[in-house]
Amino acid sequence: MKLTILGCYSATPRTFTNPTSQVLETKGHLFLIDCGEGTQVQLRKFKVKFSRINHIFISHLHGDHFFGLPGLVSTFRLLGRERELHIYGPKGIKEAITLLLKLGDSWTNFPLIFHELKSKDSEILLDDENIIIKTVPLYHRVYTNGFLFSEKPAARKLKIETVEKFGIDKSQYSAIKNGADGIQNDGNVIPNKDLTQAPPKPKSYAFCSDTVYNEEIVPLIHQVDTLYHESTFLQSEERLCAKTKHSTAQQAAKIAKKAEVNRLILGHYSTRYGSIELFRDEAKEIFPRVELADDGKSFEI
Amino acid sequence: MKLTILGCYSATPRTFTNPTSQVLETKGHLFLIDCGEGTQVQLRKFKVKFSRINHIFISHLHGDHFFGLPGLVSTFRLLGRERELHIYGPKGIKEAITLLLKLGDSWTNFPLIFHELKSKDSEILLDDENIIIKTVPLYHRVYTNGFLFSEKPAARKLKIETVEKFGIDKSQYSAIKNGADGIQNDGNVIPNKDLTQAPPKPKSYAFCSDTVYNEEIVPLIHQVDTLYHESTFLQSEERLCAKTKHSTAQQAAKIAKKAEVNRLILGHYSTRYGSIELFRDEAKEIFPRVELADDGKSFEI
Repeated sequence: MKLTILGCYSATPRTFTNPTSQVLETKGHLFLIDCGEGTQVQLRKFKVKFSRINHIFISHLHGDHFFGLPGLVSTFRLLGRERELHIYGPKGIKEAITLLLKLGDSWTNFPLIFHELKSKDSEILLDDENIIIKTVPLYHRVYTNGFLFSEKPAARKLKIETVEKFGIDKSQYSAIKNGADGIQNDGNVIPNKDLTQAPPKPKSYAFCSDTVYNEEIVPLIHQVDTLYHESTFLQSEERLCAKTKHSTAQQAAKIAKKAEVNRLILGHYSTRYGSIELFRDEAKEIFPRVELADDGKSFEI
Repeated sequence: MKLTILGCYSATPRTFTNPTSQVLETKGHLFLIDCGEGTQVQLRKFKVKFSRINHIFISHLHGDHFFGLPGLVSTFRLLGRERELHIYGPKGIKEAITLLLKLGDSWTNFPLIFHELKSKDSEILLDDENIIIKTVPLYHRVYTNGFLFSEKPAARKLKIETVEKFGIDKSQYSAIKNGADGIQNDGNVIPNKDLTQAPPKPKSYAFCSDTVYNEEIVPLIHQVDTLYHESTFLQSEERLCAKTKHSTAQQAAKIAKKAEVNRLILGHYSTRYGSIELFRDEAKEIFPRVELADDGKSFEI
């Protein structure tokens, strides 16, 4: 998995900071997560082949998470897109995008398929042979979901030289990749583990923004490889969290610790602070493996 | 008058080119004309004091002319704006902005006043002691207006030393500023032109984008100081004008020539061309006083 941050600052776009958007590349998919104003420019700037995006996930309908979506849909149209585009987001997103296309008499030539969300429980959004994507219900000022992307385990890989050395017939290869032992012509059994090697461990990524501190998400994101959790505020502004339904860096770190994740990435910073390093400093007091999102930064998962 | 181009390229925002938006500063007003995606970032980049914008004029509801408006309205809200904001644009603009604010549960604290347009004739949008603003009906794929900003003549200025030398009584000053002659105590009449000087000539600016070549606008923009007229295409793509309802640089120049304007500014360039200089070259064959808009460029009118 490769995660590229297009924007990770809260509230309003500014000259050098962009509102929330990221792309996750995994097993041939290119997923767009949130789409603040200016996302299409960020996609161009960081040379993302965005015609490959077929699925867009919108956490909630605050402007800094979706005001770039109408423009991106329009650009897909201008670029002559023909493939289906799936948009997952809160109920209302279809009405909004449809109204804007109607007012501009700019209907898409490609199928635009909305998957409107309203459940307060985790739902499966996409499930194919390579990946399963679920919502992570969050608690913010409006209906909000995070998203959990989990790769599925690949088949075991044949150690082809070993298999040939033991004289295993090719008719057994498919079964062996799926875990069967090998049987030689004389009936001798060769254990599967000697004939195959494990595939790479499937990876998982959870995106949780925007949200107040909420331990209910812990079981859903348990032991994910990478958790992106919003950290709008530092400790000095913790009092603002209850009203604005945002989190501090330390609250994000507490969730990461309880969920036993491998790595925490912080983002959705308020622009009131001089340096984002302060967010890492505060989070590290609680959870050691913290990294900072920043516009244009990529992470291998 | 001072015109600042925030964006002047057609279709989609790109890394170094922005969709249509400009600010016109005149007689204490700061008017925003069109608001493509990213306009609020351009306002910050070029250090426009955008809290002073009280009137926004939207030509039509294609994304490259108004997808920045929801974000700008939201930012005004986040910045704690209290003053009225007037938005002039095609019917439907109120429904669009209102829906987006409703979905985000982000109602403005300041009065948001929509002036929805649907007339095919020129209308007066604003008329105060300093300026009058009218629509210039354009012909594009959707309902579209240009806008004409005309300063009103100021009162004549008293030559105070001269007035005192002639011993004119102060009770006559107001009448003299409005054109009356001065009368000395002995009844001798001093012509107004000796006692006053003319105020600066009132300036006018017409914004015409997007539009097909349309001579019907000529009387409306007759002898304006500066005409901004779209020039999406060069001559080599003139065949595309009829279908897309856009103009070439030479068509813009023909309108400028027929309307006897002082200066033509070209913009709304298709990004298919290597250099925007080509637009000026072609227009100059028909009309000499041509300048090129570009993002961040300012013009004194």
